This record gives sequence, C-alpha cells and structure tokens, in this order.
Amino acid sequence: MNDAPRTYDVIVIGAGPVGENLAGRARAAGLSTVVVESELVGGECSYWACMPSKALLRPALAQADARRLPGLKDAVQGPLDTPAVLARRDYFTANWKDDGQVAWLDSVDVDLVRGHGRLDGPRQVVVETPEGGSVRLAARHAVAVCTGTTAALPPMPGIADVNPWTSRDATSAKKAPRRLAVVGGGVVAVEMATAWQALGSQVTLLVRGGALLERVEPFAGEMVADAMREAGVDLRFGANVASVERDGAGGEVRIGLEGGARISADEVLFAVGRAPHTGDIGLETVGLKPGSWLTVDDTCQVTGVEGGWLYAAGDVNHRALLTHQGKYQGRMAGAAIGARANGEPVDDAPWGAHVATADHAAVPQVVFTDPEVAAVGLSAAEAEQAGRRVQVVDYDLAHVAGASLYGDGYRGKARMVVDLDRGILVGVTFVGPGVGELLHSATVAVVGEVPVDRLWHAVPAYPTISEIWLRLLETYRG
Amino acid sequence: MNDAPRTYDVIVIGAGPVGENLAGRARAAGLSTVVVESELVGGECSYWACMPSKALLRPALAQADARRLPGLKDAVQGPLDTPAVLARRDYFTANWKDDGQVAWLDSVDVDLVRGHGRLDGPRQVVVETPEGGSVRLAARHAVAVCTGTTAALPPMPGIADVNPWTSRDATSAKKAPRRLAVVGGGVVAVEMATAWQALGSQVTLLVRGGALLERVEPFAGEMVADAMREAGVDLRFGANVASVERDGAGGEVRIGLEGGARISADEVLFAVGRAPHTGDIGLETVGLKPGSWLTVDDTCQVTGVEGGWLYAAGDVNHRALLTHQGKYQGRMAGAAIGARANGEPVDDAPWGAHVATADHAAVPQVVFTDPEVAAVGLSAAEAEQAGRRVQVVDYDLAHVAGASLYGDGYRGKARMVVDLDRGILVGVTFVGPGVGELLHSATVAVVGEVPVDRLWHAVPAYPTISEIWLRLLETYRG
Repeated sequence: MNDAPRTYDVIVIGAGPVGENLAGRARAAGLSTVVVESELVGGECSYWACMPSKALLRPALAQADARRLPGLKDAVQGPLDTPAVLARRDYFTANWKDDGQVAWLDSVDVDLVRGHGRLDGPRQVVVETPEGGSVRLAARHAVAVCTGTTAALPPMPGIADVNPWTSRDATSAKKAPRRLAVVGGGVVAVEMATAWQALGSQVTLLVRGGALLERVEPFAGEMVADAMREAGVDLRFGANVASVERDGAGGEVRIGLEGGARISADEVLFAVGRAPHTGDIGLETVGLKPGSWLTVDDTCQVTGVEGGWLYAAGDVNHRALLTHQGKYQGRMAGAAIGARANGEPVDDAPWGAHVATADHAAVPQVVFTDPEVAAVGLSAAEAEQAGRRVQVVDYDLAHVAGASLYGDGYRGKARMVVDLDRGILVGVTFVGPGVGELLHSATVAVVGEVPVDRLWHAVPAYPTISEIWLRLLETYRG
Repeated sequence: MNDAPRTYDVIVIGAGPVGENLAGRARAAGLSTVVVESELVGGECSYWACMPSKALLRPALAQADARRLPGLKDAVQGPLDTPAVLARRDYFTANWKDDGQVAWLDSVDVDLVRGHGRLDGPRQVVVETPEGGSVRLAARHAVAVCTGTTAALPPMPGIADVNPWTSRDATSAKKAPRRLAVVGGGVVAVEMATAWQALGSQVTLLVRGGALLERVEPFAGEMVADAMREAGVDLRFGANVASVERDGAGGEVRIGLEGGARISADEVLFAVGRAPHTGDIGLETVGLKPGSWLTVDDTCQVTGVEGGWLYAAGDVNHRALLTHQGKYQGRMAGAAIGARANGEPVDDAPWGAHVATADHAAVPQVVFTDPEVAAVGLSAAEAEQAGRRVQVVDYDLAHVAGASLYGDGYRGKARMVVDLDRGILVGVTFVGPGVGELLHSATVAVVGEVPVDRLWHAVPAYPTISEIWLRLLETYRG
C-alpha cells in the first residue's frame, strides 16, 4: 500500500446511478471527483433491478394490452417467446458489462477506482483493489456514500442452504423455473411474480399480510391482486414462511408455512425488504454504526458527523428507496457540495437548488404490473396522519373514453387528495393499464403546487386516458 | 307552427360534446336549458371523428408496439383482423345511435329538441322538426351556437359526382377499400391514412405542400412521414389534385395531379380543411354573415352582437378545432352565462373561472399516428413570431432508457420552448410511440406556469419515457 493518498475534492463510494449523478454534478461544479466501485459501474439499477426487470415486464404488458383489443388479440393468445425476452433483457444489462457506463464517467472527467471502498477516518477512504492492493484516497471537501441496499433475507435457519433467489437472481435468471415461489408483497415481489408468470413459470406468491403494495392506496394492491390471480398466479395472503429446505443441490425447494401448509417450487425468491449496504464501509472509523441507515438533512449531509464532509444519497439514507429519487438526491447533493466547496450560497429553502425537498412531498413511483400502479405524494391515509385537512376524490377509470379505447374491459381507478387549506394537490394515484406515463402530470401538479382552480384550465387531449384529470376535477367541484 | 315560444334561460344549438358541456354547466348554474340537435346527440366527435378514428387506430398502434418487442413480435406479423376492428369501432359509435347521450341529457335535466335550429332575431330560435313542423324557442339569457364544422371540399368541377369520402366516410366505412387515396396533410389525413393502411388498404397520401402536420414542430411531420412510408403508404408531397372522376357508379376513382401524374383508387378521402357549420342557422337575422366563423371574446360571447346574449363555443368560433378544447370552452361559457344570469361577478381575468384563457396559451393535441405526436402551447416558430425571448431545447427520445425499453428501435424526439424572461415553459412537443399520455405533464407545466427551477424537483419515475423531462431540463441547464 502506498500511504500517500490521492487527493480529490470529492470521493463518491458507489458508482450506481446515484453516485454517477452526484459525481457528475460535483464535477460540473468544477470539483475533481473520483468514484469507487466494487462491482459494476451502473449499479444495482442497471444490472439487477430497474433495467432488467422492466425488460422482462415490458413484453408481458404489451401482450396484455394486445389481448384487450379485438382485431389483434387472437394473434397474441400464445405464450411469450421467453428466450427472446431474456435475450432482450441481456441486451439491456449490456450482458452485465459496464464499458458503456465507464465511458460515460470518462466523458465527464470523473475518475474511477475499482475495489471495495471503506472510510478510514474523516475525509479518508481506503480502497481494497481487486488485485489485492489498496489505494488511499483523501477528500478536500466531501465523501459521499452511495452504496445503496442489498436484499434482506429473513432470519430463518438454513435459508442460505436453499440458495434462494433475491432480486438479483430474479432479474438475471437464464431461464424460467417451472415453479417459482415468491415471498413478499411489495414492488419487487409483484413485479417479478408478474414477469415470471408471463414468462412461463407457475408462480405462487406468499404474502405475510393481507394486501399487496401496502405503501400506496389500498385499491392499488387490490386491483393488482385480482389481475395476478386472473393471470394464473397462486396468490396467498396471510402466508408466513416458517421453514425452507431444498431437496439436494438442484432439487426442489420445500416451503413450510405457519399453520402447516407446504409448497414445493423449483426456486424461491425472497423479496421481503432491503438492508443498507453499509456493513463494511468503515462507518465505525467516523463514529457511525456499521450496517445502519445514514440519516441526512435535505442537502444529503449526514447528520452527527463533525465537519460536514460526509454525505449519503440514494437508498442508503432511507428517504425513498427508488432509483429516480436517489438520482435526484445525487443531483441535489452534488450541487450542494459544489456550492459549499466554492464558497457560494447554499440555497436550502424548500424547493431550493440544493435540497431534495421532493423527498418529503412528491416521490413518484410506477409499479410495472398489469394494471400499472402510478402514485405520487401522499396517500389519503398519509395525508390524514399528517393532520392535513383534505378531500379525497375517486374516479373509475373505466368510465373515461380514452381508457375504454385503450383496451376492452379496462379496469382502473384514480384518486386525488386535495389539501383544502391550500387548494392544491398533495397526492395522486392512478391504477390501470397504460397509466405509467400519466404520472408525471400529477408530479408536476404536486411539485408545482398548481392551484386546483388553475388545473381546471389544463385541458386533457381527447380521447386519452389523461381525461381522468377532467373527471377528477369535475367530481371535486361537484 | 305554434307561435307561442317555449322559453328557456339558455338555448344551445348543437348537441355535440361542446353543446353538452355548455348545457351541463348552464344547468348546473340553475338555468333552464334546452339543446337543439339536427342529427345525433353526441355530435361529430362521438360518431364520425374522435371516437371511431381512435377505435380504428388503437389496434394498429398496439400492433406496432408489439412488433417492436422481441418475444412478442413474431406473433403479430400478420395483418389485423379488420372486421373485428370495425366491429369494435361500431361499438364505440354505439352503432350510430344516441340513446346513451340522450339519457345523459335527461340525467342532468337538460331538454332536447330534435331538428334544425335557426336563429330568428335576438334570443329567438326556430327549430324545423323532423316531422315537418316547427318549434319556436326563446331565451331569457343566452343562445349558444355549438354547431361545429363540416368537411370542406375543394372547389373542383365534378367533385361531388365521384362521391368522395370525407372524414365521416373515413371513420364509418364498413370495409377497407383496396386502394384509398387521401388528399391532405393534416391530422385527419395522417390519422386516416395510418388507420386504413393498417386495416389493409393500399393508401396513397397526396399532400399539396412539402410537409405533414404543418401546425406543429416540423420534426413531428417528418417523423410521421418516415414511419408512414415504412408502413407502406405511398406518400407524395407537392401533389396538387387537378381533377377527379369516377369510372361509373362503383367504379374506380381517377385523380389527376398538376403536372400530369394520374392515380387510380377505389375511394378518395378529401381531408383538406373544415368549414364553419353556420351556413343555414339564421345568422343573417342577427346581423351576422351566414357561413362565417363566429368571433368571440374569452367568455365565448360573440362580438358585435348587441345585448351580449349570443355565444359560440367549439370549432365554430375558430379558436381551436379540437373536441377537448371546445368542451373546455363549453364549460367556461356555460359558467360565464350562469354568472351573468345570476348577477354574480364574472371572473374574466386571465385564467379566471369564466374565460377560456388556455385557448391562447395551452391548446394540447395528440395525433394518434405511429409515432404519436403530442404538443401543447407554442412551437418554436410561433414563440418567435410572438416576439418572445425563448430558448429551444431538443432531446432525442431514443436516448431515454424508458423509451428504449418501450420498444426496440425506438425513434422519437422532444422539444421544449422556454420563455427566458419568465423562466417558464410556453410550449412542449413529444413525438414517439407511447407519448400520448405524457402530454398532460407538459400541459400542467404550461398552464400552471411552473417555474423551470421548480420543474427540476419534479422527478420522473425510472425507467419511464417521462424521463425525457430530466433530459430536457439537464440540457437546458447546460
């Protein structure tokens, strides 16, 4: 080890989309910047999450759309060509090679050090390189932790021995298991259950509670559950996994549920939560607890660390476990680091240039199931818990002409939550086929704090699904 | 004829979507309201425009989407089942029966008089009924003309003798002609050329000028032209129709172009413009010129008519020939009539409750071709002509992850026009498959006059096509 550190203005640990965005913004502010990556540049999202999962889901959703259209539906009654879908997925993950992403770093003049980075006291990072050496880095201004999360497995005896799937396996599998058991009821669980059922697996979805997608409006999970059952998923609520074992290497997995039921499958995916990827990054050298979530302020500066040099953006700060929101934090944190380093004023008023205000008010999410679920801001329950005086407005999407035209038998629902004291929207949820791109209209309305009276002038094109906006506003106005 | 008039607060001539919305709002304001309709309640949109055209186009677009997806595309290489598509179209036009729409009028307590309505001096309307009688109506407060437009045929000798298609025939045809010539380059022309080419016709599109869709950003028409050619349409620019004749009843149509070229087809659609449907509605009895567009203020009150009792909403006022914008005018005019009748203040400041301000700033339009074209507000050229100091920001949609996932070989483009003095958007255009529902995000941004700096906080969900917003804003910020 060469003890003379390589010094940069900014060190970023983790070259996923969040680290990339943060590094890009810091560099754009004129700061010399290095990122440290122990796996692939591009991170979880590019190789084992957003990109491959959507590549698996997109043909399934397009097929479902086509099956709702007389004139086209007869042609698409057969199964998807699974090898072709998997090959397309491989393309979108660049076959798990990161040359393209490395080229991007080069193009914006951000350095890359490959290896496992660990904090080593204030502003110091030591990277254990793949070759067995180490590189010491020192930061003049900031170190940003963008290490994300890993799949959390339940503490169950012998679980590692069954070689369970996590989100990584579910997104990168080379063939469809004949029988796939999925444990969980959140986004990863429902998306992967949807994808693999469409790709030929018989999926059993084991949900501990009584609902899917518990963080959004309850009707979303209900509609997704109905559709999954119709697609052939064996969906079981109140299913607590008590034991899991595999019948020899490559044999079937046997899952025991509390109450005694047993399920056999060829693979089992555990999608029961995420843990911060901070167990072995030297947090203890700066007074923080290894394995903990990193608490940050709105500029993504870690609280409780002297000198204000440590930042954390993305999943690891636990504000919103979504790629796009982490990228947003990365942009804001990178800009804040730049402003502070350059002695410029930090614009940290709400919605300022250096704060991730939207984390509190307008986190959008699209779940790529059939129906799609698209939500931003507060649910009705969250608004109520927050003590807001709100009106909840619901409308059946099946009654919107554009939705009916989109596909026969269209089922969907929309809800908007109006803050009656401010006359603005604080939350909007759409559930239905083809609503994903509609979400951003709601995000702009919530973030822009556009008065409901002004939204009355925002005319949706006819006949699109967007006309739901007119119906919601008419319903609100009574 | 019974000369004692039936008196209402408000008389609406024309029960299309615009008249329905206006009547509904007037009635909601407590005014007794009657609508007069000479054809079908529901109007052009429901039977011969938006609804049937989108019913014809939707399977074609879904097929195009499916053909871009490995794993699904092999199944959809064959032609659409045209009879099934036409049957679905018939369903969406309710087989050209208006019972459902009449039931809606009943449900909101608006009266209906069937027949041809004509003004007969101030506040008077005489309806010639289908039975050969007449009904005299008198309005206490307002008469609203919502008669829309009809297809304009070029003044060409013998054109009527060839029994040409207009938009009505193109949307209601019972089978696909083997060869269809389409004259025009606007929305109706490109949508119907797209639909019938997909439904089995060999379409020849004859465009007088050198571009399609001349009212939106030039790249839109270029991309649609490229795609139409690839779909097999014989697209000819600079094609001026000089003569047209049919070879006997039911025989082929022969079209002569200036310069001497000749085209044979089984049917010819003229989609070369619209004329106000005001030729025979008694305008002369109130000092206006029959056959003219009706000029209105922002409350849709016709200018130059004494007493302020005459309104005109929808296509007939020539502000924006789009169903949704006409409906918006109908809502605003109905509310304005209600306020004036009830002696309430009229909120006619820009974006007020009684004015159609969006007609000037934010008219959205989606063209349902492959690629879709979605635009709102000013084009770059229009902004420049208006003397605005703007920055034009372009981005290639093919470089957005969500677009690539949407379909292989994705081609699309987006443009936003930023008003540099106000720091807001004045126009946005998206061209590409699947962008239709994305438009409303732009409409909310333009209508809400959301500052560009605030839009930076409106995070698009990853990976959707909506991420184009991030790319446009990044490009703008440099």
